[in-house]
Amino acid sequence: MIPELIKKNTPQHRMLAVGSLAFDSIQTPAGKVDRILGGSANYFSISASFFTSLNLVGVVGDDFPKSHFEVLKNRGIDLAGLEVAKGETFHWVGEYGKDLNEAKTLSTCLNVFEHFNPKLPESYLDSRYVFLANIDPDLQRSVYGQIKKPVLVAADSMNFWITGKKQSLLQTLELVDLLTINEGEAFQLSGQNNILDAAKRIRAMGPKILVVKQGEYGALLFTDQGIFSAPALPLATVKDPTGAGDTFAGGLMGYIAHEDAGDEIFKDDAILRRAVIFGSVMASFTVEDFGFTNLLRTTHEQVQARYQEFLKMTRF
Amino acid sequence: MIPELIKKNTPQHRMLAVGSLAFDSIQTPAGKVDRILGGSANYFSISASFFTSLNLVGVVGDDFPKSHFEVLKNRGIDLAGLEVAKGETFHWVGEYGKDLNEAKTLSTCLNVFEHFNPKLPESYLDSRYVFLANIDPDLQRSVYGQIKKPVLVAADSMNFWITGKKQSLLQTLELVDLLTINEGEAFQLSGQNNILDAAKRIRAMGPKILVVKQGEYGALLFTDQGIFSAPALPLATVKDPTGAGDTFAGGLMGYIAHEDAGDEIFKDDAILRRAVIFGSVMASFTVEDFGFTNLLRTTHEQVQARYQEFLKMTRF
Repeated sequence: MIPELIKKNTPQHRMLAVGSLAFDSIQTPAGKVDRILGGSANYFSISASFFTSLNLVGVVGDDFPKSHFEVLKNRGIDLAGLEVAKGETFHWVGEYGKDLNEAKTLSTCLNVFEHFNPKLPESYLDSRYVFLANIDPDLQRSVYGQIKKPVLVAADSMNFWITGKKQSLLQTLELVDLLTINEGEAFQLSGQNNILDAAKRIRAMGPKILVVKQGEYGALLFTDQGIFSAPALPLATVKDPTGAGDTFAGGLMGYIAHEDAGDEIFKDDAILRRAVIFGSVMASFTVEDFGFTNLLRTTHEQVQARYQEFLKMTRF
Repeated sequence: MIPELIKKNTPQHRMLAVGSLAFDSIQTPAGKVDRILGGSANYFSISASFFTSLNLVGVVGDDFPKSHFEVLKNRGIDLAGLEVAKGETFHWVGEYGKDLNEAKTLSTCLNVFEHFNPKLPESYLDSRYVFLANIDPDLQRSVYGQIKKPVLVAADSMNFWITGKKQSLLQTLELVDLLTINEGEAFQLSGQNNILDAAKRIRAMGPKILVVKQGEYGALLFTDQGIFSAPALPLATVKDPTGAGDTFAGGLMGYIAHEDAGDEIFKDDAILRRAVIFGSVMASFTVEDFGFTNLLRTTHEQVQARYQEFLKMTRF
């Protein structure tokens, strides 16, 4: 059975996301692009907007194209929490070799993001679902602390923070219910090299729900109910993996907010399993073109058709 | 639903396997063993013996322990095609680093295997299912040519033959119905770096059914009916991956022979999907200890319980 996607715009489904909005310059075996729009908050919220309405928290410079604000608003993404600061927008330069699983960062200019100190608008404080994208764990906690009573808080992180701000990251992890993290970073964070040991260690740090992303091999979900293994869809064309992880998180969290099951989510993993598949579905669209070009032109019908492909690919 | 495993001993289910019987000296992060029993034909036939009876073709030296013959016979493995030659048994020395997905070969002494020229006993010529393990493609064809009218012929191969005997390997591939191969070797064999392109190219070489092994990430099955993605079971203990691929092939082919669906297997992939899962199930037992120690002590009940774990792990 394919879950029907009727976007929920009522306040109780509203999800808050904090992360980066950026210019990305990317080279992959499929080509090269300069200063296209990117950033974790963009990928996440565009992906999640297929399932729910959103409150966006972030900062851009005065060089950021205003036309993109309309794109986001038209998808039900609220921008009251988006600050436009004097200066330049965050700029990431990276490249991928034949192994598209790992980006090589060539330069990171934080620019306006360096002094970002998010203050949430009053209208955001009742957000029920929260996603703290891969940013400084201090910032993640600063946003978390402002929200009144979230139902479920999720976060992402990466090697940069595991190495550079481990103590702060551990404080954040104590607060979150769900962590999405790459497999290599799960090993790094836990100090383990077996995935079951790593999952056990990380879940003891706070997040009851752990999603380990394995790139082109799919994802593993660890909960009190056990393990769920989701494949990735083999694709004819993979042009640019940038944003795949955030898009994945957007589908995952978007579907969780869409179902709005409250505490049930911790007692029965059925919604989480479908959410992981929707995460993989959304990510599969992103990587087919540079940036979020393909994600923006994707339809609800295509999302449901691809969910069906995952069903067909895994039945036995 | 878990398929029931009632071992079929009737001639029409009988499967022939040709491959190596060896001494292996192995070092992994979990320990070191010297001259334990191994070889593709051993792993394959012990694994397949859970599902069907077998005709074994291979060669050992006069240093090979006769007691092992009894172990195999007691599992319904016929040894009329096993030659005992003057000299030493094939000996492989290898080691694995933390990344258990790839073995580093330290030495290979072919010994009696070097001049192996298999002549099948009369009683083997009616074998309905055939597995040509990863040996010289010339030898694979020499065995193939002696069998009267097989229902399904499967083969395995590796980088060594892709690099060193490509033309002969291509001649073998024209004859086989099913190929199992590692993902990296699928890329190497096809000259492609996208898995869909690689699968298309390899299936055009002969094998209508292609199984791409992805180690700890599972396996992909490509048929005329589409793609099936099977996960691997995350395991608490992985001591030694040696023989995992051959054990996988044993579960896969063993279940196919067990079902004995004839030409139906090319028209409906339901049996193949379950066969891939049984392959993963059997491999999961092998890697839990050195050599085939754990495989030999595994019960039918454990096999079916683990099949159930795969079902639980993949439902959504």
